[in-house]
Amino acid sequence: MTRDEALRLDEADPLASFGDRFVLPTGVIYLDGNSLGPLPRATIDRVSRVIEDEWGHGLIRSWNEHGWIELPRRVAAKIAPLIGARESEVMVADSTSINLYKLLASALDLQPGRRKILSSPRNFPSDLYMMQGIARTLGSCELVLAEDPAAALDDGVAVLALTHVDFKTGELFDLAGLTAAAHAVGALVLWDLAHSAGAVPVDLGASGGGAGVDFAVGCGYKFLNGGPGAPAFLYVAERHQERAQSPLSGWLGHAEPFAFETSYRPAPGIGRFVCGTPPILSLAALDAGLDAFEGVDLGALRAKSMALGDLFLDLADERCAGHGFRVVSPRDASRRGSQVSLAHPEGYAIVQALIARGVIGDFRAPDVLRFGLAPLYLGYADVWDAVEALVRVMEGREWEREQHRRRAPVT
Amino acid sequence: MTRDEALRLDEADPLASFGDRFVLPTGVIYLDGNSLGPLPRATIDRVSRVIEDEWGHGLIRSWNEHGWIELPRRVAAKIAPLIGARESEVMVADSTSINLYKLLASALDLQPGRRKILSSPRNFPSDLYMMQGIARTLGSCELVLAEDPAAALDDGVAVLALTHVDFKTGELFDLAGLTAAAHAVGALVLWDLAHSAGAVPVDLGASGGGAGVDFAVGCGYKFLNGGPGAPAFLYVAERHQERAQSPLSGWLGHAEPFAFETSYRPAPGIGRFVCGTPPILSLAALDAGLDAFEGVDLGALRAKSMALGDLFLDLADERCAGHGFRVVSPRDASRRGSQVSLAHPEGYAIVQALIARGVIGDFRAPDVLRFGLAPLYLGYADVWDAVEALVRVMEGREWEREQHRRRAPVT
Repeated sequence: MTRDEALRLDEADPLASFGDRFVLPTGVIYLDGNSLGPLPRATIDRVSRVIEDEWGHGLIRSWNEHGWIELPRRVAAKIAPLIGARESEVMVADSTSINLYKLLASALDLQPGRRKILSSPRNFPSDLYMMQGIARTLGSCELVLAEDPAAALDDGVAVLALTHVDFKTGELFDLAGLTAAAHAVGALVLWDLAHSAGAVPVDLGASGGGAGVDFAVGCGYKFLNGGPGAPAFLYVAERHQERAQSPLSGWLGHAEPFAFETSYRPAPGIGRFVCGTPPILSLAALDAGLDAFEGVDLGALRAKSMALGDLFLDLADERCAGHGFRVVSPRDASRRGSQVSLAHPEGYAIVQALIARGVIGDFRAPDVLRFGLAPLYLGYADVWDAVEALVRVMEGREWEREQHRRRAPVT
Repeated sequence: MTRDEALRLDEADPLASFGDRFVLPTGVIYLDGNSLGPLPRATIDRVSRVIEDEWGHGLIRSWNEHGWIELPRRVAAKIAPLIGARESEVMVADSTSINLYKLLASALDLQPGRRKILSSPRNFPSDLYMMQGIARTLGSCELVLAEDPAAALDDGVAVLALTHVDFKTGELFDLAGLTAAAHAVGALVLWDLAHSAGAVPVDLGASGGGAGVDFAVGCGYKFLNGGPGAPAFLYVAERHQERAQSPLSGWLGHAEPFAFETSYRPAPGIGRFVCGTPPILSLAALDAGLDAFEGVDLGALRAKSMALGDLFLDLADERCAGHGFRVVSPRDASRRGSQVSLAHPEGYAIVQALIARGVIGDFRAPDVLRFGLAPLYLGYADVWDAVEALVRVMEGREWEREQHRRRAPVT
């Protein structure tokens, strides 16, 4: 494909205009929206209004008058359609890791007599660390990691906990199939949607062909564009809500927080999974970020995401042959999230050289170059230009001058 | 005291100029800084820069280039001198409630053979709820509530966990004395500084007459003026840091988060108590809020806080007699935090009538009118005017028209 052909695809792209909803610096092709989504234009005014009018002028009154107290629920209602959930099944709170702890403990509670948390060594490390923490502190459970979790399912498994998209390779796991397999042995499932929500349509729910997932968590700052460290979300299927109980039973999850009772009584429904007071500035930014999805057809979003990935891999095959890359993402777009990953022994230096050329991807140890392809603001010509930059970095051996660079704290 | 005398105290007040560091709406006397501190002027530009320049232009690079990854530690370093701690003993993360869970679990770990968490029924309810949650999930401990915790100390107590200032009455507990009493029976202590840090100087540390406190948590959005739901802080005495371990062992508390290892290895020192990715916008606001303490003499701050409280109570005695108020705060300023509380059967309606007059305090069920007196931006004439408003509300029976108002969600 030529660059002109890529430009023609952009002209015909029904999602092309959505890119205007984001601030993207000129001269930058941003392939790291799976780490940190870019700034939605509307966020600037929204947060400024929250600070100057709501906080500055409204002060404490804004909890009621500007509806801060309901904001976690209102933001969650914007996430629900992206993941195939009812509004009453989603809540925004804390971080992905902390929400995972809440829901794993809840799942274990619902499964007396079963001790195992089953996951994969390829799961996102923070998820594994939280599972290790819960196994260490609760004592009543153990963590089992299996390369092939489906094969390790048995009637001792309390909960199967996996991430929908492999953070390194971009492999998209079979959410419905693995959920059904877990349910067949009486296990519950917990999916981390950090690398899918907002780019890959998810159907968690039980109705109309949905997967009937029990629990899920996900991230606000990747494809949801909520800003650095934005609050995370959690999902609890309605059928579990009255029995599931958060171990982190803070006051805003109480049935009547402002009654200041001495004993905890969980709020009805999903509200019990809120813990402390939410960070309103960051939460308002997430709220504004989610508005960028208004009017977006999720089917078209997925189709474009797959096409961008195919284009990247085809161009890399054609133009980077002989430079020592290995494609680590699935070739089949239907088995891939919204990223493509290549491996190369000089991966870190190559990513730095690409950044010097304005193409921002990221590196994952030991050797993975990771390129997020967010279909909401990236076009086909962007992908073409990114591969062109990669070709020049390799042909000009530009990575050699990055080789001895000290690795930055965040890589 | 007349209003003119109050104005003369303001003229002589060495802290008077610090009020300019805050945006306070005209016509409002803000006596709720112990619920939500007002907007520091510098916060407006700071957050706007973080959004537009650091996030918008810098994108993912800002984790390194604008030092986001170090921001929790840098903000913590500004809190350390307010609470008598070393910089290496303080971290900013999550919410007060979640930090309490981390440190209680850590304390229990350090006390094998001791099962009891000892607290008071007057502790802030969220703290009690978190203790109930930890007792329920860990199974290995029990929560004991005692009206007189000092009398309930014995060698079965693993940790004594109290809040430094009673949220309803404003009573300031004897942090050093209770810490020593707990240590005498081998118990550890955990103090919640939500209602003291930033208004009452605290000396947690072990050196030079400090209390030698083991653990502490506190709030960023009250007297620290970090904005609604600002991230909270935690303190772990250096002597415990290598053995204490967070149950919420997320990736940013790992020794090498970006090595993406499969197993959790805690970071050395206080860094292990970070869990997930921090909400940078809210964290930057807290950072800017703390700058309002630059150049503030903490002794002068405390002296003014005590004087403002004495003035409020004296004026209320003198001018509100016969209206059915009962003072529930200690009369002795040295036993009081930075608030005064009155009880009245019509408390809710009276607070609403005061708000209608521009005097913002808050109500705590069942009958407490609570007035926060933040010495950084309040003056003596503000207190005089607040009591004047209270006199008019009572003499004009203005509260009667608020009596049938439906209570707002946040009271």
